Amino acid sequence: MDAEEFRRRGKEMIDYVAEYLENVEQRPVYPDLEPGYLRSLIPSEAPLEPESYEDIMKDMERVIMPGITHWHSPYFFAYFPAASSYPAMLADMLSTAIGCIGFSWAASPACTELETVMLDWLGKMLQLPESFIAGTDGQGGGVIQGTASEATLMSLLAARCKAVRRVQTYTSDKSEVEIFSQLVAYTSEQAHSSVERAALIGGVMIRKVPTDSNYAVRGDSLKKMVEEDKAAGLIPFYVCATLGTTPSCAFDQITELGPICNGENMWMHIDAAYAGSAFICPEFRPLLNGIEFADSFNFNPHKWLLVNFDCSAMWVKKRTDIIGAFKMDPLYLKHENQESGLVTDYRHWQIPLGRRFRSLKLWFVFRMYGLQGLQAHIRKQVALAKEFESLVRADKRFEICAEVVLGLVCFRLKGSNELNQNLLKKITNSREIHLVPCQLSGRFVLRFVICARTTESRHIQQAWQHITQLTFELLQEPNH
Amino acid sequence: MDAEEFRRRGKEMIDYVAEYLENVEQRPVYPDLEPGYLRSLIPSEAPLEPESYEDIMKDMERVIMPGITHWHSPYFFAYFPAASSYPAMLADMLSTAIGCIGFSWAASPACTELETVMLDWLGKMLQLPESFIAGTDGQGGGVIQGTASEATLMSLLAARCKAVRRVQTYTSDKSEVEIFSQLVAYTSEQAHSSVERAALIGGVMIRKVPTDSNYAVRGDSLKKMVEEDKAAGLIPFYVCATLGTTPSCAFDQITELGPICNGENMWMHIDAAYAGSAFICPEFRPLLNGIEFADSFNFNPHKWLLVNFDCSAMWVKKRTDIIGAFKMDPLYLKHENQESGLVTDYRHWQIPLGRRFRSLKLWFVFRMYGLQGLQAHIRKQVALAKEFESLVRADKRFEICAEVVLGLVCFRLKGSNELNQNLLKKITNSREIHLVPCQLSGRFVLRFVICARTTESRHIQQAWQHITQLTFELLQEPNH
Ligand SMILES: Cc1ncc(COP(=O)(O)O)c(C=O)c1O
Ligand SMILES: Cc1ncc(COP(=O)(O)O)c(C=O)c1O
Repeated sequence: MDAEEFRRRGKEMIDYVAEYLENVEQRPVYPDLEPGYLRSLIPSEAPLEPESYEDIMKDMERVIMPGITHWHSPYFFAYFPAASSYPAMLADMLSTAIGCIGFSWAASPACTELETVMLDWLGKMLQLPESFIAGTDGQGGGVIQGTASEATLMSLLAARCKAVRRVQTYTSDKSEVEIFSQLVAYTSEQAHSSVERAALIGGVMIRKVPTDSNYAVRGDSLKKMVEEDKAAGLIPFYVCATLGTTPSCAFDQITELGPICNGENMWMHIDAAYAGSAFICPEFRPLLNGIEFADSFNFNPHKWLLVNFDCSAMWVKKRTDIIGAFKMDPLYLKHENQESGLVTDYRHWQIPLGRRFRSLKLWFVFRMYGLQGLQAHIRKQVALAKEFESLVRADKRFEICAEVVLGLVCFRLKGSNELNQNLLKKITNSREIHLVPCQLSGRFVLRFVICARTTESRHIQQAWQHITQLTFELLQEPNH
Repeated sequence: MDAEEFRRRGKEMIDYVAEYLENVEQRPVYPDLEPGYLRSLIPSEAPLEPESYEDIMKDMERVIMPGITHWHSPYFFAYFPAASSYPAMLADMLSTAIGCIGFSWAASPACTELETVMLDWLGKMLQLPESFIAGTDGQGGGVIQGTASEATLMSLLAARCKAVRRVQTYTSDKSEVEIFSQLVAYTSEQAHSSVERAALIGGVMIRKVPTDSNYAVRGDSLKKMVEEDKAAGLIPFYVCATLGTTPSCAFDQITELGPICNGENMWMHIDAAYAGSAFICPEFRPLLNGIEFADSFNFNPHKWLLVNFDCSAMWVKKRTDIIGAFKMDPLYLKHENQESGLVTDYRHWQIPLGRRFRSLKLWFVFRMYGLQGLQAHIRKQVALAKEFESLVRADKRFEICAEVVLGLVCFRLKGSNELNQNLLKKITNSREIHLVPCQLSGRFVLRFVICARTTESRHIQQAWQHITQLTFELLQEPNH
């Protein structure tokens, strides 16, 4: 395929994409097929000779589309949103075309520098404390990670390294591994599984702090655990607090946790993967109060800020902490300007070496929407969640299971877990809307999240009508 | 931006991209600017209100392009290639539009299933042993990782977990951390820094095995280290062999290393990040002999197989090994079909949770090029490297520093390291071609790699002419 053919096919593809997104609500949101469906639809080996482009595109509808869960259907209410917008898609085409691998400043200065400045822009939108802003001479700054899981892992590794150095200054005979075996990390019992995984990878213990009736971690509970562990000779070194937990969008009390972390020399990381985007609205910003105590903070613009996956924004107060976690400089990656202090080599900030030019997506989205446009997007989706909440509350057969703060509504039929499991099964099998469950205080709960950028009030109304219809059918069944 | 505007802007963007790639050789390959150049060119905060699309695109030329190192210029010979092709770019647009986050089978069955089958296709192209192919009932199979660094880390974590379980079966009183402190990993002193990093992350010791005169690790050297370490009470558990090292594209002797690994219960991972793509050609496939001993194998189609970043292909012989490294199943990620055995939930195979629909890129590239087209691409680039090698060999002032097997030529001026450093400085500052150095046996060496898909003989000739011209100038200088 030469440039001429690319021009033609590329334009057809733009039309295909626009067509797909405009009409996605007409497709069943969740596929109806058996595991292993795809293998028999295509050859078992790659072709020796080129095939025609038409055949490949035909296979998109024959092979791929029937197996897609349509995350951008306005009837998709599962997990958390996967952000998407046209400006981000255009920027991503650019980033693919430029195709630089920006592991160091020299590997493409614009890639590194735009990232630092975009994270400053975004940090200011969130009103992050000055200490997280790189500016021209700050000690802190931001980086784009692929995912929140990687951000959490990086923060834990940086904290581990810092803890080892600290312990070794007063007990210089202790080996690194000996210290590892005494380190304890803490997170909410409601935290995302990636936090426990990070501890597992890093080879340190992790304890789950119980939550209050709002599913939030409070200072007292953390304090108590830390005291116990210290008394047992362990070394508390890291806390991952969550703002907007995955099951119910609960908010750990970081104003209580922060002073404890700072007092005990524990690294405080804040994971706001989903909820973080909302903090650009002044009315939601108070949820971030306490951020000043944190060593690192992360949220996913690729969840709720109209920037397509992958783009997870992370800030640290001291860049040296994160770089120090594992700085390595083979000659083929060294470059002239490296020691100037002005230069950031982002490969020291992350697990992978290679990295895409992801800040272009942020730049396009910030400029095409403006802060006000982004705020409008968040507010609209929160209002839709409130609309759904009212519908649930008005039906006495149902209950709301957690406070609705942002775009997630946790609800259930009053009754057994089995009843609710059966309802969800009916919903899933209907393929008209899609949602997933969670567990709260031992109860099976349905999670309804406003996801697609194009979800409107009519989709919410339609979804609720559908749920009540299926509920009616379920309650008619003899052994429901 | 609505769908209509996207159609218009998207088509303009296709033209911009085609135009950029067709004419990239006219741009200086390496930017001429000072660190920090970008910040002053754009506002210090995001706009409140939307800006015009025209202004943003104007800024591409004003702000971004001057700061780009053009990896797809035919005069770019640095690092290793970053693959790129039009079919991959089209497929990536689709993957962005579908925008599913394929962490589990249910999150988009096509995303998971196409990946498994494409890795089977690719595995067959490489003639991997049957045990790495998933098929319908294999124990092994493939996965797309973001980068080789992640693949190495995953393999090391899987090996660590397996080693702990094994040790605990005969010394059940040993704690996990105690065992960690005895584990030793091995890799070549020429290995990529990501291997040492993986060990650092996993909290295990790593030893660098010395190489022979071809910069390859031999069985005897590994054997000797392993014996020493066992005698010292340590537990050798993991070897990362490299096929195609980053400095000089050397090949560890895996037919010698394999039996040692298998005999000592050490996990053998093979990192062929760059060279792996060449194994689709029968004439290069012998370099992979010994793969049958490996537990896991990885290479980057995003380096040399015309698939844009990110796409790093990894295979394991036993999927349970890698899944077992950290399987976690919160309710909101559970789904009906999960336990059927037919179903792969790729989030258990990787560090991040979220993942893009990356196999579409493989599918498009395999089908649009056909195996023969891909082989032709590899052969052409190897021939260009040989052409450059001949030019160097014909000039008695220069020497070749390592056997030229694939697309990398290591060379230097006969003379001091300083002389060669000065030559490289001249080259870098000229901005007509771009390459980076490495160190081999204490000597400063220039690496010349065939990178861009569009590099032709005339670019090689031109590059060599340029190098000899700068050499001439350098040798004229009084204190060269
Ligand atoms: C609170 C929280 N943290 C982390 C994650 C993991 O996100 P990622 O896929 O970016 O690793 C999620 C995903 O839903 C989440 O809700
Ligand atoms: C041999 C080898 N291994 C690993 C890597 C790291 O690649 P990635 O950016 O995919 O982590 C490289 C990069 O050049 C390499 O040459």
